[in-house]
Amino acid sequence: MRIFVDAMGGDNAPQAPVEGSLEALRKYPALEISLAGDLEVLEPLLKDCDDVRSRITLVDAPEVITNNESPVMGVRTKKQSATVIGMLQLKEKQVDGFVSAGSTGATLAGGMFRLGRIPGIERPALAPLMPNGKGHFLLIDCGANVDCKPEYLVQFGMMGNAYMRGVMGLENPRVGLINIGAEEEKGNALVKATYPLMEQAPYNFVGNVEARDITGDVADVLVADGFCGNLVLKFMEGLAGTLLGIIKKEIMADTLSKLGGALAKPAFRRVKKLMDYTEVGGAPLLGVQGAVVKAHGSSNGHAFACAIGQAIRMVEGNVVQIIEQQLAAAQPDA
Amino acid sequence: MRIFVDAMGGDNAPQAPVEGSLEALRKYPALEISLAGDLEVLEPLLKDCDDVRSRITLVDAPEVITNNESPVMGVRTKKQSATVIGMLQLKEKQVDGFVSAGSTGATLAGGMFRLGRIPGIERPALAPLMPNGKGHFLLIDCGANVDCKPEYLVQFGMMGNAYMRGVMGLENPRVGLINIGAEEEKGNALVKATYPLMEQAPYNFVGNVEARDITGDVADVLVADGFCGNLVLKFMEGLAGTLLGIIKKEIMADTLSKLGGALAKPAFRRVKKLMDYTEVGGAPLLGVQGAVVKAHGSSNGHAFACAIGQAIRMVEGNVVQIIEQQLAAAQPDA
Repeated sequence: MRIFVDAMGGDNAPQAPVEGSLEALRKYPALEISLAGDLEVLEPLLKDCDDVRSRITLVDAPEVITNNESPVMGVRTKKQSATVIGMLQLKEKQVDGFVSAGSTGATLAGGMFRLGRIPGIERPALAPLMPNGKGHFLLIDCGANVDCKPEYLVQFGMMGNAYMRGVMGLENPRVGLINIGAEEEKGNALVKATYPLMEQAPYNFVGNVEARDITGDVADVLVADGFCGNLVLKFMEGLAGTLLGIIKKEIMADTLSKLGGALAKPAFRRVKKLMDYTEVGGAPLLGVQGAVVKAHGSSNGHAFACAIGQAIRMVEGNVVQIIEQQLAAAQPDA
Repeated sequence: MRIFVDAMGGDNAPQAPVEGSLEALRKYPALEISLAGDLEVLEPLLKDCDDVRSRITLVDAPEVITNNESPVMGVRTKKQSATVIGMLQLKEKQVDGFVSAGSTGATLAGGMFRLGRIPGIERPALAPLMPNGKGHFLLIDCGANVDCKPEYLVQFGMMGNAYMRGVMGLENPRVGLINIGAEEEKGNALVKATYPLMEQAPYNFVGNVEARDITGDVADVLVADGFCGNLVLKFMEGLAGTLLGIIKKEIMADTLSKLGGALAKPAFRRVKKLMDYTEVGGAPLLGVQGAVVKAHGSSNGHAFACAIGQAIRMVEGNVVQIIEQQLAAAQPDA
C-alpha cells in the first residue's frame, strides 16, 4: 500500500504533512509513502526518522497550486505540483491513494481532470464524516458542486452508501435527503425532483431528513447539493464554537459556576473530543478513480495521519469498486 | 392599538393564545384584542380576567385551517376561520396587527391572498429573530419561498432592514447574504446573481456571510432563500439541542463533573435563556400590508404574549411604511 502525500499543502505545511506521514508509517507497518514537495525543504525534516525512512520515497514537486489562483488553470499549467504529479501517479496505479491539505479546488480539479471520474459518475463530491455525539454521518456534497441536478444527488447517495459500507463497515447504510420537511411533497424544486428518483435507487433511502434531525442519528449518509451541504458543514463549526463560547462566558460569570466549570473540565474535554472532526481525517473526494482524501487546511500532524489512515481504509474497503457495482446495478440495461 | 389574535392555532390552543392575550393586555394598558375562535370554547376561559375583559372583543371564528390541508384552499374556502377573518379585518384597518400560532402555510396564504402584498414587493417572507449570544439577527426568508429569484433576495434585505430599523431601533442595519465563501465570486447561481444587485440596493449591504459566521454577530439581517434559511433555522435548533445533550451526558459520566455541573447550573440556565428564541416572539411575515406575526406552534402563554408585543412594535415602528419608502427609493423612476 502506497499513499501519495502532498507535503506542501495546508496551513501547517510542510511540518504537518511530514509529521503526519511519520506517524502513519509508524502505525501501519505495510504502508509506504511518496512524499511530494520541494526537496530542499523536505530533506532536512526527515533527519530523525531512520526507523521508517526506507518506506518514504521523495518526489520532486517544486510547484504549489495556491488558494488564490484558478484551480482549473493550476492543474493545467503547474505540472510540477504535487496535485498534478500525485493524481497522475494514482491514475497509473503507481500509488494507491492521494492525500492533501492544500487547496480544495486544486484537489477537485486534479481529481476531475488528471485522475478522472468513474465512468457513469456525473459529478465527484466531497464527503466529510461529521460527528453527532453518538457516531458519525457522511455529509455529501459539502462544496464541490454548488448547483446540482437531481441525478447528481441520487449519485451522491450511491457514493455515500459505498463509503459507509466499504470504510465504516455498515451493511445497509441509511441514506437521507436533507430537506425542510419530512413529507415527500416538501422542499425546493431540486429536492422535490430528487425524492422519487432516490426511491428507485439501489440503496436504503430513508426519505427526507429535516435540518433539526441532522445530528439526530436518523441517517448514516446525508445528501445535499454542495451549497446547502457547505452551509451545514460550516454552520455546525460556527454554531458549536458560538455555543461553547457562550457557555464558557456564563460559567466564568459567577463564582459557583466557575468552580463547577473547573470541576467539570474532564466532561468538557470529552465533549470537545466527541465533536472534533479532525479525529476522523478529512473529506474523501468520491466519484473519482482512486482514493483521494482532502485533509482539513488547518490539519496538524495527527489530523494529517488520520487522513492518511482514511485513504488506506478507502483502498482496503474497495470504495471505488463498490461505486462501480452500484452504477451497474442502477443501469441494468447499460 | 388593536391586535387580532387567532385563539385556535398552535399546539397549545386555545389556552396559550388566551393566556398570552391576558398577559399582553396587562402589560400594555392601551392594547385591545380581538380574540377569534370557537366562542363556546373561548368564553369559559375568560372567567377570571375582569381587570382586562373590557378590552377583549370576541370574534366568532368556528373554522380552523389545519396543518394537514392545503393552505391556499383553506384560505379560499374557510371564510369563518380566524386566519381569513383576521386578515380581512387587518386589510380594512379594523385591527392594527394579526398574531397566530397556527399553520404557517395558512398565515402565509392569508397574508398573500386576503391581506395582500405591499405593492412592488415580489414575495413576502418569514423573518424570525435568532439569538447569537450577544444579541439577535434577523433571518429572512426562513421558509415562505423555497425557490427564489435574485430580485426576491434583494427585497428580503430591504424588508429585513426595515424591521431592524423600525422594531429594533438600529440606525443602519448591516445586511449580509448567506454564502459558502466571503468573496463576491463564491456561491451558487442564485447568490452570485444576487450579490451585484444587493450592492446597488438602498441599504447597508456588508457582503457575503459564511455559514461559520452566522452566529458571529457580523450582520443584523441575514438573507437567504427560504430553503437555506429554513435549514439554518432548524439546524440551529437541532444542533443546539444535540450539543447541550452531549454536554449533559458527559457531565453525568463522572463524579467530579457531575458535582461541577450541579454548581454551574445557574450558568446553564442563563445559556438556555440566551439561546431561547421564544422570548423574542415569533416570526414576522414581512412584505404584506400589515403587521403579521407567526408565533411558534409550540408557544406557551408567555411566548404568545411576546409575539403580541412584537406585533405592537411592528405597528409602532412603521415597518410597512419603511418598506414602502425603501421601495420608492429603489425605483426612483417608478
